[in-house]
This record gives sequence, structure tokens and C-alpha cells, in this order.
Amino acid sequence: MAENEKRVDWRELREFTAAVFNRAGVPRDDADTEAEVLVWANLRGVDSHGVLRIPWYVENLDTGVMNPTPQIRVRKETPATVLIDADRALGPVVTVMAMRRVVEKARNVGVGWGLIRETTHQGAMAYYPLMAAEEGMAGIASVCSPPNMAPFGARAAGVHNSPIAIAAPGNDRNLVLDMATSVVAGGKLDLAIDKGQRIPLGWALDPEGNPTTEPRRPNILLPAGGPKGSGLALMFECLSSLMVGNPLLEPSLSGVKEMQRGIQNSFIAAVDVAAFTDADEYRRNVDRLIKAQKELPAAEGVDEVMVPGEPEDRTYGDRIENGIPLPQGTAANLRSIASRFDVPLPSGL
Amino acid sequence: MAENEKRVDWRELREFTAAVFNRAGVPRDDADTEAEVLVWANLRGVDSHGVLRIPWYVENLDTGVMNPTPQIRVRKETPATVLIDADRALGPVVTVMAMRRVVEKARNVGVGWGLIRETTHQGAMAYYPLMAAEEGMAGIASVCSPPNMAPFGARAAGVHNSPIAIAAPGNDRNLVLDMATSVVAGGKLDLAIDKGQRIPLGWALDPEGNPTTEPRRPNILLPAGGPKGSGLALMFECLSSLMVGNPLLEPSLSGVKEMQRGIQNSFIAAVDVAAFTDADEYRRNVDRLIKAQKELPAAEGVDEVMVPGEPEDRTYGDRIENGIPLPQGTAANLRSIASRFDVPLPSGL
Repeated sequence: MAENEKRVDWRELREFTAAVFNRAGVPRDDADTEAEVLVWANLRGVDSHGVLRIPWYVENLDTGVMNPTPQIRVRKETPATVLIDADRALGPVVTVMAMRRVVEKARNVGVGWGLIRETTHQGAMAYYPLMAAEEGMAGIASVCSPPNMAPFGARAAGVHNSPIAIAAPGNDRNLVLDMATSVVAGGKLDLAIDKGQRIPLGWALDPEGNPTTEPRRPNILLPAGGPKGSGLALMFECLSSLMVGNPLLEPSLSGVKEMQRGIQNSFIAAVDVAAFTDADEYRRNVDRLIKAQKELPAAEGVDEVMVPGEPEDRTYGDRIENGIPLPQGTAANLRSIASRFDVPLPSGL
Repeated sequence: MAENEKRVDWRELREFTAAVFNRAGVPRDDADTEAEVLVWANLRGVDSHGVLRIPWYVENLDTGVMNPTPQIRVRKETPATVLIDADRALGPVVTVMAMRRVVEKARNVGVGWGLIRETTHQGAMAYYPLMAAEEGMAGIASVCSPPNMAPFGARAAGVHNSPIAIAAPGNDRNLVLDMATSVVAGGKLDLAIDKGQRIPLGWALDPEGNPTTEPRRPNILLPAGGPKGSGLALMFECLSSLMVGNPLLEPSLSGVKEMQRGIQNSFIAAVDVAAFTDADEYRRNVDRLIKAQKELPAAEGVDEVMVPGEPEDRTYGDRIENGIPLPQGTAANLRSIASRFDVPLPSGL
């Protein structure tokens, strides 16, 4: 932990976050859900998707991009699928609701496939497939937003660096992958800015489309694995935005529609293990798979082979016990939010 | 086209391929399906998954790894899902059958999710999601086999370089992404061997886990995007092999079971556009999306921004008209196969 960081108890931080959203006009239950997902990201060390974003969320609530009291509606439904209109709800509010519904469908017919139209920022995507894993299912979640990444071969933003998260249930731990389709997530640029560091060539282009080592917004992210990362991103737009009749990439590129950064469309899925095989045996097989991966010889300079989600699980253990470290900048932002909404700060902040 | 390559008419090559499989004990209809999928890969320029593999398939039929006359059985089924036991069928035979079933389910309940247990090599995965696209649906297909790729941070094979293919229907063209989770597909090494070429550093490790430029089997492939490629590969084992109760990675790593390279488990899906949005509008949106991508400014040294599947579509047009070029090594292998099975060679081979 850096010396200028403060450690804050996660329960207090969650209560604070919920109170802020509540005062900003969000009903208490929904504010609790939002706080749960944000502080969970911090607990797992994914600080770029945690309480650091509260000021940005509040701004989006102020300007009406995010809707504190949405009319969330099921537009289409079958025994296996559901299309939900989020009405610009806070992402965690609608996505938790949608994931529950999809899990229920998977319980009945083996798979549940959900589409969410016009949600807003969903936080750390891993949260949702892990809801399925907690129910003994595999889970999948992805999302598309307006362009921020150059497709392979282009020197301008043309796709979003859409993340995908996939989870599978184990006994010792649930496996969960949560990856952006860019070489690095946008938050890594923010971190470099905060630290006054340069970034390696190959992470991003400058706004004019030239390779750069300077971490700036709005740099253009570069795709992981070249055509693979940008290919996935493009297909995720087809599976989410086009599937809900709300394209985000093309209208933004052609200038037809001004795109708001917080708006996104999402697809989620749950696959019930018990519909296909013995659920206990599945969990044991996940445990065995993890063990076998960890026993592989490590590459030179690597201490230990890690499975997806493992570094985050370790951070979680530490932060549950020792608190969540918040950098000075974040702490200052939260203090001014507290003062605006007259909400008590967590101890030590 | 290299000077030492011969151009062969695709119809003759398909007839030849079907005849070979038929003589090797595969019923004529199934041999036709196998030939269709293999020559389709060649037509699209994916030579690593085309007729180059015939000798290897024949060897697998000889040794009983691949079953020419399988008892393909539906083991579990719901309105939205199906679990099929392939009985080591030729991959294309069982996967085409499974994809049809999954498309039918998607037609009824919006999504179809299929699992195939113990299939064998499926050829170019793009073929299957494109079957869904032809029906106005998005399609997904992935697969897991025994380890051939090093997980990020390891210096030994621990995962398979599981490909994923995703397709979406358009009017001008269907979009289709087909990517291995390794930096390059294993077939690219075979091709380099057939062409007598070296490979770039970063594609693979040698069997001892050291970087290499020599294309050999069994080299260890390296994951695309580091932890992203190997993370996806690990999750695909959870979504396919563990879901059908037939783990391939861990038993192979722990030495519990000797793993046969041609054996694999697969998951496939179809999502019916019409269950969620207007199908015509969806196709128009795919067209617009492609157009917008192609209008992006190209990076230095790049002639043209290409969308997923576009280079293959162009090769397809050329090869339908001008024939499929076969390198000398492949031609020689096919000649000895022709002589073994007493099957007439395509003209010019």
C-alpha cells in the first residue's frame, strides 16, 4: 500500500456508497445493489471499477444519462430468453435483476439467455456470471458501448473494447475470467496518468491515430491479439446492441447520433450444469483443473501459475480483513461527494 | 501462388475427398459432409483445416480414434438445450447434425445451446455458426481438446488452443469470426512444415518449453494476448468438456488417462434474431456496421480495414473460380492416399 493511501472498512464504504446513491435519488434497495457491486470491485482490487467512479456516476445522474428511477420492462420473453429494456437504469440494478431471471430460466430449461437494452455502466462484469456460479451454473456476460478501440488495421476508434466475463462453479473456488478485448483496459491509462508514467508502445494510439507512449484520454485503445481482440469486440456489438435494435458503433462513427459514454447494451447467459452432467462431479473437476494448472512448471521469471480470478481472490481476502486502500485523489473526491449529499464518511477517510 | 503449387478444381477435390472417406469406411452421406467442410476451409484459404489433414484423418480412422460408423445419441434434451454423445464421430458429421438441432430450438424458444461429447476434429469452426447465420441467427461454436498450449505464466502445455467462432447475418455478407486462442492455430505449424519454412519467435515453445523458430509437432503453442487467450481456453474447457463430464485437460496433465489428440468436446449455440428484434433491420445494421468499419482510416502500411471473415470471403471467390492451390507436400500426400484407396485424383494433381 502506498503511504498516501487510506484503508477503509468495506462495510462502512458500502454503507457510504449506498447512502450517496440514495440521496442522489436512487431508491434504497437499488442504491444497495449499486454499492454492493462497486465495493465488491474494490475488494477484488479492480479499483478502476469501484468507488473511484462515484463522482462520474453522480454526474451522470445529474445530467440524466443514468436514470435513478427507471421503468425497467421485459419486452420479450420465452422459457429460455428475455429481452429487458433498462430505461437507462444503473447497470448493476438492471443486470442483477436480469441475471436472476436468466438463472431461473436455466434452472427450468438448461440455458437462459438475456439481453439488456440501454443499460448504463455495469461495473465489474465478473459479478454477474459469478451469480450464476453461486447457483451451480456457468455464467457469461458481455457488453458493448460507443467506440474507444481501433479495429485491427485501422488508426481510429471503431469498436468498443467490450469485456467478456465467464464463470464456472468449483468447490475450492469459482473460476472467473473477466477480460477487456483491448491489450489493457482503459483504467490502466488512468493509473499511468496518476502515477506520471509513460505507457509501453502497443497499448494505445494518440487521438490522431499515431502510436504513443503518453497516457492520455481520449487515447485510442489497441486490440488484444490484433484481429482477435477487435473481432470479438465487433461480434459482441452484433450479439448485444444489434440484437436489441440499438446499434452503438455505426451511428457513432457515421455521426448520425451523438453517443453518450455511459450507455451500453449487454448480453448475459447462464448454463445449468445439472442439465447436462452431475453437478458435484463438475465442481470436483473444476477443483482438479485448477490444481493441475497450478502444478505446471512456471515460465522464467514467474513465481506461480495463476488461474483466472485468482489474483483478485487473494486481494479480496486481504481487503476484507485489512480494509480497502483508497488513493488520496479518490479520498478527496469522496469527501466532496459526502459534503454535497450530507452523508457521513467512513472512518478514517 | 507459389510456383510449386498446383491448382485443383474445388468440385473435383470435394469428390476426391468424399471418395477417400467413403473407401475408408465412412457412409457416403457422412463422407460428403466431411468433404464439404474440409474443402470449404480450403476455398476460404484456411488450408490448415482443409485437405492437408486427410492423411491424419485416415490414420485416426485406421487406429480407431475416429469412428466411421458411430452411434450418435441424444443423451439429454430440453426445449432449449441438447447434449449429444458423438461416439467419436467425424467432427463435421456430428456438429452439422447438432447445429441443425440447435437452430431448430432457437427458432422455437429464441436460443439453442448444444453440447457434443467426444466428437473428433471438427475442421474449420466457422462453418457451424455460419449455418445459424444462414437461418437469420447469430451462431457460436467452440471446442476443447487435450493440452497443446502453455497457459500464461507456464512453460508447458496446460490448455488447448480452443478456437471460438461467432457469426451474425447480414445482407451483403455474414460476419464471421473464427479465432484460435493461441497466437496462431496449430495448423499454421503444419503448413510451415509442408512449406519447409521457419516460424516467428512468439508463436510456440519447443517441447522443453523454450522459445523456438522451428515448426515441429509437438511444439507448445503460446496464447494470444497472454492471460486472455489462455483464460478463454480454460473457460472453454469448463463450458465444454466439464459440462459433458469428459474432462480432457486435467486427466491428461495428471497422466490419469492417455489422451488422444483427435478427441474433443464442443459447445455450440444459436440465438434467433427474430426473437429479440426485427430481422431485416438487424441485417441492415450488420451491413451498416461493416461499411462503417471499412471507412475507418487505415493504419500505416495497411491497404484496407477488413472485417472478420472478409479475407476468407475474397479467397473463396478466387478459389471457386481459379481452383484451390495445393503445396507440393500436400499434393504428394494426397497422391499416396489416392493410390492406397484406389480413388481417382483430381485433374492436375
